[in-house]
Amino acid sequence: MEKGKLYLIPTYLSSTNNGDNITNAVKNVIRTTTYYLVENIRTARRYLSSLQLGLDIETIHFEPMDKRFDEQALPALFKPLLAGVNMGILSEAGLPAIADPGNLAVRYAHEQDIEVVCLEGASSIILGLISSGLNGQQFTFHGYLPIDPVLREKKIRTMEQIALSSGYSQVFMETPYRNQQLLTALTKILKPDTVLAIGADLTGQEQYSRSKKVSVWKKTFFKLDKIPCTFSIGIY
Amino acid sequence: MEKGKLYLIPTYLSSTNNGDNITNAVKNVIRTTTYYLVENIRTARRYLSSLQLGLDIETIHFEPMDKRFDEQALPALFKPLLAGVNMGILSEAGLPAIADPGNLAVRYAHEQDIEVVCLEGASSIILGLISSGLNGQQFTFHGYLPIDPVLREKKIRTMEQIALSSGYSQVFMETPYRNQQLLTALTKILKPDTVLAIGADLTGQEQYSRSKKVSVWKKTFFKLDKIPCTFSIGIY
Repeated sequence: MEKGKLYLIPTYLSSTNNGDNITNAVKNVIRTTTYYLVENIRTARRYLSSLQLGLDIETIHFEPMDKRFDEQALPALFKPLLAGVNMGILSEAGLPAIADPGNLAVRYAHEQDIEVVCLEGASSIILGLISSGLNGQQFTFHGYLPIDPVLREKKIRTMEQIALSSGYSQVFMETPYRNQQLLTALTKILKPDTVLAIGADLTGQEQYSRSKKVSVWKKTFFKLDKIPCTFSIGIY
Repeated sequence: MEKGKLYLIPTYLSSTNNGDNITNAVKNVIRTTTYYLVENIRTARRYLSSLQLGLDIETIHFEPMDKRFDEQALPALFKPLLAGVNMGILSEAGLPAIADPGNLAVRYAHEQDIEVVCLEGASSIILGLISSGLNGQQFTFHGYLPIDPVLREKKIRTMEQIALSSGYSQVFMETPYRNQQLLTALTKILKPDTVLAIGADLTGQEQYSRSKKVSVWKKTFFKLDKIPCTFSIGIY
């Protein structure tokens, strides 16, 4: 029997997004997908309903795959795929398998010779980088910074040093409620001529992308409390 | 007078894509944009026509911004923006400002306090990574590898060393007609247990994503001649 396909399905990046931010190619896959591995079941249901595709949400199967996810569960979760049924992965925002356990499922799919299919959608990492004007040809994404202030400061200094010596842009994130605090730390720690770019609510109605030297950020009041942001540092 | 906005507009990633792979949000911006900075004028015209939005392509202004682009031209090119007219940037494939001079225009926009707005679309870098099952939380993108075989081998060894020691996935590209040659080199140079992922024709009808250990790739015949690919190396 032919195996099903594992689709990596994008969702909204901004809370202000709607069906207009999702392609027909994605909607067409969603129309025929009834099994999902999801970071959050409530968000996933709400997303699929919002697309207004006439789906009967009650007949769709959702399996949680969040931070507490145990890889041992994969063989059981993959039973539909092995039986020829397609499955989708949905994260809480944007593309799956970046900052969620989705990559464990993708890895397992490759091991089982299950076809993995990705679909176009918004990635805050890439969108933050391209809207920064910084080097887009070489860059490193570091995920979330350490919470401990000492470790965080060390990480910021290391990233700046790499950016200045190699020209590779350095991209990172923070949980939204710590963004303001991070911006203050960045303006204190980074050198005045280093360029710091912030992309806030990317693709959303409140989208705000700004790149400035740290010396200019120091004199700028910029409220990014609780807004999802991508930070990039580099040189012009 | 209020300045125009600079839109970073995605285009098709695969030659088999069509309007179904572009969101309505993007199409709505294109409907009202008449000035473009483009990597290739012919590709840009063909793309806008293919969306079937009823645009009068003859009334749209295209300014080339390719490899030979001189930054000195920016002040003249930005005149419409300063006069309140929106402009778009279009690259040859996928998102602009990654592997084209688009980032110079974005940087100039920030210097001129012109609002930069990004839109959701396909990035082969991110899609290659998420469909690999490799670490998506920390990674480096290296752009195109050196052409010189000695420098290329050195770069491949350096990337593998970073992947194995730091866990950061290493993503890179090659011009399509050298892909097959690169795959042969990778299977010779990398260690047997290193995971090599290839994403070919991502989002396209011939999409093929596979992750395997190098020892397995060595025994696999895989034709990727002339197909746009993303390569990722890392550990499972």
